[in-house]
Amino acid sequence: MKAARVFEFGGNLQIDDVPEPTPGDGEVVVAIEASGLCHTDIHACHGDWPIKPRLPLIPGHEGVGHVAAVGKGVTRLHEGDRVAVPWLGWACGFCEYCVNGWETLCLAQRNTGYGIDGCFAEKVLASADYVGLVPDGVNAFDAAPLTCAGVTTYKAVKVAGVRPSDLVAIIGVGGLGHMAVQYAHIAGATVVAVDVREDKLQLARDLGAAYVVNSTIHDPVEEIQRLGGADAAIILAATPDAARQGFDSLKRGGRLVFVGLPRQNEVPIPIFETVLNAKTVTGSIVGTRLDLAETFELHASNLTRVVRETRKLEQVNESFEDVLAGSVPARIVFDMAA
Amino acid sequence: MKAARVFEFGGNLQIDDVPEPTPGDGEVVVAIEASGLCHTDIHACHGDWPIKPRLPLIPGHEGVGHVAAVGKGVTRLHEGDRVAVPWLGWACGFCEYCVNGWETLCLAQRNTGYGIDGCFAEKVLASADYVGLVPDGVNAFDAAPLTCAGVTTYKAVKVAGVRPSDLVAIIGVGGLGHMAVQYAHIAGATVVAVDVREDKLQLARDLGAAYVVNSTIHDPVEEIQRLGGADAAIILAATPDAARQGFDSLKRGGRLVFVGLPRQNEVPIPIFETVLNAKTVTGSIVGTRLDLAETFELHASNLTRVVRETRKLEQVNESFEDVLAGSVPARIVFDMAA
Amino acid sequence: MKAARVFEFGGNLQIDDVPEPTPGDGEVVVAIEASGLCHTDIHACHGDWPIKPRLPLIPGHEGVGHVAAVGKGVTRLHEGDRVAVPWLGWACGFCEYCVNGWETLCLAQRNTGYGIDGCFAEKVLASADYVGLVPDGVNAFDAAPLTCAGVTTYKAVKVAGVRPSDLVAIIGVGGLGHMAVQYAHIAGATVVAVDVREDKLQLARDLGAAYVVNSTIHDPVEEIQRLGGADAAIILAATPDAARQGFDSLKRGGRLVFVGLPRQNEVPIPIFETVLNAKTVTGSIVGTRLDLAETFELHASNLTRVVRETRKLEQVNESFEDVLAGSVPARIVFDMAA
Amino acid sequence: MKAARVFEFGGNLQIDDVPEPTPGDGEVVVAIEASGLCHTDIHACHGDWPIKPRLPLIPGHEGVGHVAAVGKGVTRLHEGDRVAVPWLGWACGFCEYCVNGWETLCLAQRNTGYGIDGCFAEKVLASADYVGLVPDGVNAFDAAPLTCAGVTTYKAVKVAGVRPSDLVAIIGVGGLGHMAVQYAHIAGATVVAVDVREDKLQLARDLGAAYVVNSTIHDPVEEIQRLGGADAAIILAATPDAARQGFDSLKRGGRLVFVGLPRQNEVPIPIFETVLNAKTVTGSIVGTRLDLAETFELHASNLTRVVRETRKLEQVNESFEDVLAGSVPARIVFDMAA
Repeated sequence: MKAARVFEFGGNLQIDDVPEPTPGDGEVVVAIEASGLCHTDIHACHGDWPIKPRLPLIPGHEGVGHVAAVGKGVTRLHEGDRVAVPWLGWACGFCEYCVNGWETLCLAQRNTGYGIDGCFAEKVLASADYVGLVPDGVNAFDAAPLTCAGVTTYKAVKVAGVRPSDLVAIIGVGGLGHMAVQYAHIAGATVVAVDVREDKLQLARDLGAAYVVNSTIHDPVEEIQRLGGADAAIILAATPDAARQGFDSLKRGGRLVFVGLPRQNEVPIPIFETVLNAKTVTGSIVGTRLDLAETFELHASNLTRVVRETRKLEQVNESFEDVLAGSVPARIVFDMAA
Repeated sequence: MKAARVFEFGGNLQIDDVPEPTPGDGEVVVAIEASGLCHTDIHACHGDWPIKPRLPLIPGHEGVGHVAAVGKGVTRLHEGDRVAVPWLGWACGFCEYCVNGWETLCLAQRNTGYGIDGCFAEKVLASADYVGLVPDGVNAFDAAPLTCAGVTTYKAVKVAGVRPSDLVAIIGVGGLGHMAVQYAHIAGATVVAVDVREDKLQLARDLGAAYVVNSTIHDPVEEIQRLGGADAAIILAATPDAARQGFDSLKRGGRLVFVGLPRQNEVPIPIFETVLNAKTVTGSIVGTRLDLAETFELHASNLTRVVRETRKLEQVNESFEDVLAGSVPARIVFDMAA
Repeated sequence: MKAARVFEFGGNLQIDDVPEPTPGDGEVVVAIEASGLCHTDIHACHGDWPIKPRLPLIPGHEGVGHVAAVGKGVTRLHEGDRVAVPWLGWACGFCEYCVNGWETLCLAQRNTGYGIDGCFAEKVLASADYVGLVPDGVNAFDAAPLTCAGVTTYKAVKVAGVRPSDLVAIIGVGGLGHMAVQYAHIAGATVVAVDVREDKLQLARDLGAAYVVNSTIHDPVEEIQRLGGADAAIILAATPDAARQGFDSLKRGGRLVFVGLPRQNEVPIPIFETVLNAKTVTGSIVGTRLDLAETFELHASNLTRVVRETRKLEQVNESFEDVLAGSVPARIVFDMAA
Repeated sequence: MKAARVFEFGGNLQIDDVPEPTPGDGEVVVAIEASGLCHTDIHACHGDWPIKPRLPLIPGHEGVGHVAAVGKGVTRLHEGDRVAVPWLGWACGFCEYCVNGWETLCLAQRNTGYGIDGCFAEKVLASADYVGLVPDGVNAFDAAPLTCAGVTTYKAVKVAGVRPSDLVAIIGVGGLGHMAVQYAHIAGATVVAVDVREDKLQLARDLGAAYVVNSTIHDPVEEIQRLGGADAAIILAATPDAARQGFDSLKRGGRLVFVGLPRQNEVPIPIFETVLNAKTVTGSIVGTRLDLAETFELHASNLTRVVRETRKLEQVNESFEDVLAGSVPARIVFDMAA
């Protein structure tokens, strides 16, 4: 089968013909139809993070397709089921996090397209219990970005405790941010979107933002405080400055949620203001299988719109470059049949 | 009446004879019996914080005594009632914070011994609705430190969501920390206390800490992670280093609560670790009138012990020096009858 | 001034000329423009409930107008401010409920149009701290029903913890129910509305319900369980049968919220099913001042629609009859200028 | 191996020699040392509940012992590990409840000693992921009752949201109630225990209850309301009357938790009082694997005491009779080596 593989950190991916996987106990093989490109794939291929993937690696953790083969002991799935293969490829199922609704914190987890081979391939091996079922009526090319960009921002909005009448700042309107705007809006909030580009801000408006701030022109802290301060701010822009702007934009009792992972890791948090204003800072990473199911459910109810662009897998290297250059309007999804 | 007043920031307090207050509408005059000394009083007298008190000022916000006079329209209190006069001297009663259970965030609040005259005096004027009722059986010299050091740490433990089977790190065992150890223990947690002095650590053990770490000898992060990591860490030591140690001591999903206000205000928080480990950082300031009532209730049930030392009001300047030098075992309480 | 008064329980209201109120300390007089009719007003005039109002009584607790006079010590309001006078006319401000965000549970509370004279009058006396500010752009005739029917259902949706992807059953689509449908929808839920009349069900659809059940034709329990069971059910229909249907419609972990007060008070709850399915049953009454502010805010954002009919105060007795006969499409609002 | 089996509902159990189980994929065989007797075992053997177990059946779901054999694919456990085999014998691991921290609500769950053979035997087959690890220092004869009576009441106290300064009513002080008293006390509550027997009430006092009420002598509602009303009431006594007493004992905002399953299933709940007083009624069943781990952890910390009586498995039928007669001081545990 065809797959895109990386052989050395920072090197180009190669499109190779590799052997098809066969499912072991509790596993399925998924024939990928659509496969989204996430910034994390680039980090994986560049070896950017402390814990590095083994090489060669097939990246990709937004894979959507049909179950092509079912391993022994799998009762949940059958051949032909439409599924999504997410970042959380497997978790232990019995640690305190798995038992307590926080499987995304499982210390033994395996991550698709990082610790195990992923979805930039015609077929991928997956743990049957950890794939997501894609409801009828959800397009595969929408489902792919929902599998990571969607569920990640959906979960961040949940973690932020967003509810009707809240003012919520979404800082950074790209592949993740344009979904975050929608989830905050669905939850009843008044959304203020912050970005450096007018086209992104226009997109945010189209997707439900009541206010937008171009942070190259206006100070977002001032603008948001003028609106009364944010009940919650969600940081998709990967810079400590954006994180600190989010903090400073909160009203008393407000909640800051980090999602984006900046290269420069540390943000200075002022203790005095945290105490006096009872601000809260937290982080959110992807989402559980239930979060993913809810993400798909909202899309099946026509409540969300995914802005994406379809490409061939052969374009993977130029796609990486385009993402790094910031020149892609939203999410790139590889069409595996193209 | 006798009162200790400061006339210039950083200057000595003077013990003066000042006119007795008379209660206006909704006010009472409280004849102070015991008056605790909090580090905040020193900050007030030194003008350490951005918003400065007006001078001359009578500091003190841990005042306990009897109602001596009752103003017009007061139905809640009668002459002779035992009450405590806390930091939150008055709040508006109708803003979103007051209505929603967070009166300590009221933007219009008046603070005893800071924005209005406080309890280093034989009598103090107080808003009748905002004093705390002191139950029978709670000694006035215990009640005084409970009025700020007690309720502040009680609330921090509440904000931290401490519950049975949690591992809770209390970083800094002084006037506040020795109470925090007890409240975390009462809530069912296993407590690990961190300090730089052996006598403080012995006190923590006596008050219920299961583990202690002398941070001049052992690395608290290493020790606490060896125990599995903290579900919550409460920072009473007023340094960014202690704050960061608290952060690093948390297990996944853990919660850090700032209470102490360091001179060096900013602590660098790593975004990557916040996201991957779903850590939460927040702050807590004093407590509401309900928190204070619960604090007194626990003491009336013999569940807490206040370590304190009684002095004369005339010793206020040397007491400030002793607190700054760190040479006081625990809380200083002025005996107004002495 | 003109006012509608009841002199004996069950008797007709009389439109009388009564003396205008003058504001005492902390009070305002509000010149009523629009005054909503709530079923509770009928209960008050009939003396239906255990604790009865004193007579003669001016009922009404959905009064909206301008501040006409301001008493001593009021700083929050000025002449001309647009305000709403709600059921919660006054609360003590210092009990555990008032301090903890639950002023609607204050045991000392005074209720407008019940314990104190209400809004079926050209002017009403009100406690300045307890009226709601009506934002510009909210029509007085919309604001009136929002002051009780709106905030009550908004709060019930909040108490039910409704969030995106939830299935929420609204049982009873009248003056309250048609608002509940909207609030659940705003919070991101999929709404299933249950009623006995097709026109009400059509209204529910128009206001955002994804599903409707005519309970004279279909069994709501069966229909809702076919959809997977409700995450929450809110009971506006005032019968124990409706309450039990709500219980039986819940999925595991679901939450039932009583709002309507049936004449036949008790509903049998099965313990076995409560335990095995972890169902929760609770009640919700009106809302706090913050809930009211949020209710107005949502309306000012054009997110809600109030279905109501304007009448003259002189029609109060026939209006009571129409409400009891169930022949009013939605909320009746008296136009005090008519 | 020796096992106690029931062949017809209501018939006596027979002590038989049955074949030893062998572990399949993901399973272990546990050599039982101590096996607790729960009232549910009697319900199982009597076929009391709507969904009946298949016969013949080996009951028992409080089994503690060592892993004697390990099936294929098990990495979590090794021969010799000390484990407890609880009521939740297996859950699917991927439904919304399993993913969301509520595995006890999994609709596909298998229950030990009910749907599958249980622990009244020398050996039992168990799903490796669903047994509990018993920490060193926890006696097997203590661990057995903790495996159901302990975790069930621990979880009920958690569901009740018990915290310091709460007044908590424990209604029924038997095998479950004597543990509930302790868990509420550990969580910082003031406990009021209600029972009909003086020896049980004395036990409750010994285990931390501050107040006791003999409900044959005093009205518990009156007594508890005199104390201010309960923040939470947990119902272990299996009668609707006890359930209603619990409801009536709550203060405003209080929370009632059903645990015991009465033969007469329905309790009438008054809607008016539920709404006006914002009371909440819910149910709690056993606990998750995390709850069980926490239960063991508290015991390992010497915070709980298990009152139990050891018997031989051959005494199983007389033990059932004694439990039904209410003549057993606390939990019966079968010593499988005796």
